[in-house]
Amino acid sequence: MTDEVLFEFLHMEMVSNVYKEQQSNKMQMDNKDRAACVSVLESMGFRVGQGLIERLTRDSPSFKDELDIMKFICKDFWTKVFRRQIDNLRTNHQGTYVLQDNKFTMLTQLSNGKQYLDHAPKHLAFSCGMVRGALSNLGLDSVVTAEVAVMPSCKFQVVIQKL
Amino acid sequence: MTDEVLFEFLHMEMVSNVYKEQQSNKMQMDNKDRAACVSVLESMGFRVGQGLIERLTRDSPSFKDELDIMKFICKDFWTKVFRRQIDNLRTNHQGTYVLQDNKFTMLTQLSNGKQYLDHAPKHLAFSCGMVRGALSNLGLDSVVTAEVAVMPSCKFQVVIQKL
Repeated sequence: MTDEVLFEFLHMEMVSNVYKEQQSNKMQMDNKDRAACVSVLESMGFRVGQGLIERLTRDSPSFKDELDIMKFICKDFWTKVFRRQIDNLRTNHQGTYVLQDNKFTMLTQLSNGKQYLDHAPKHLAFSCGMVRGALSNLGLDSVVTAEVAVMPSCKFQVVIQKL
Repeated sequence: MTDEVLFEFLHMEMVSNVYKEQQSNKMQMDNKDRAACVSVLESMGFRVGQGLIERLTRDSPSFKDELDIMKFICKDFWTKVFRRQIDNLRTNHQGTYVLQDNKFTMLTQLSNGKQYLDHAPKHLAFSCGMVRGALSNLGLDSVVTAEVAVMPSCKFQVVIQKL
């Protein structure tokens, strides 16, 4: 119970620290500043995702194919990190995957009000990075983005980059 | 297993991010810069400690006295956050406590070599803050410092500030 929230509390502090640092010398943040923050958080997530997947797959058999890897991310990886499985996985079978989480852990601490929708991206950047880092260590280059239509549900889009 | 390292990985990224931010505009960091980093990490830890102890003590009976609180920190709090209990608690019965952890979780990922001793403080600041935050929410103002003589063992000194 407490161990669970430890990660969320730390994540929240980290997000607010990154934004505070970026803002420290300015009156107001512009879109470029916000993009810089998202990028910092995404990179941190990337490295954490790399480290985690290494531990997670230590005793796993190798994967059959790309879809097999994505299923592992949706089940095992998601459960370990976010304490629930992805609710829905869709793919066009051409390297694009949509992972839907109806109650995304990193958003459940935020209020559900519509006015908080604008704040969602900063709470998703680290997680996008983690997924990208995990996939990268499994040999898949990808672009991972997230969008929120209704809190706290969240859709992650993974586009595998073919060489 | 993986959940456990998630906190450590995130903590490590956070430490390195705070130092990178501070260093970004300089050739070299001086003591003042280092103190600023430690202070940022300590404050983040403080807020996380406050949040955690609130959850942790929700179903706990109230505490008898100061020593009772310190024992709770050494056992329950330490186990939840660092996955082990404090090995030794000493006090002068005048508000000073020394908590010894012979294998401190936040240091076990670092190499044991003597040359890494200099790096220890940056990995302890957040934890010191967490202890201070937890005590603060239990009604005790304190100063918390940590020192490492031999890795990965660590001594935390807690000095309760009487009014």
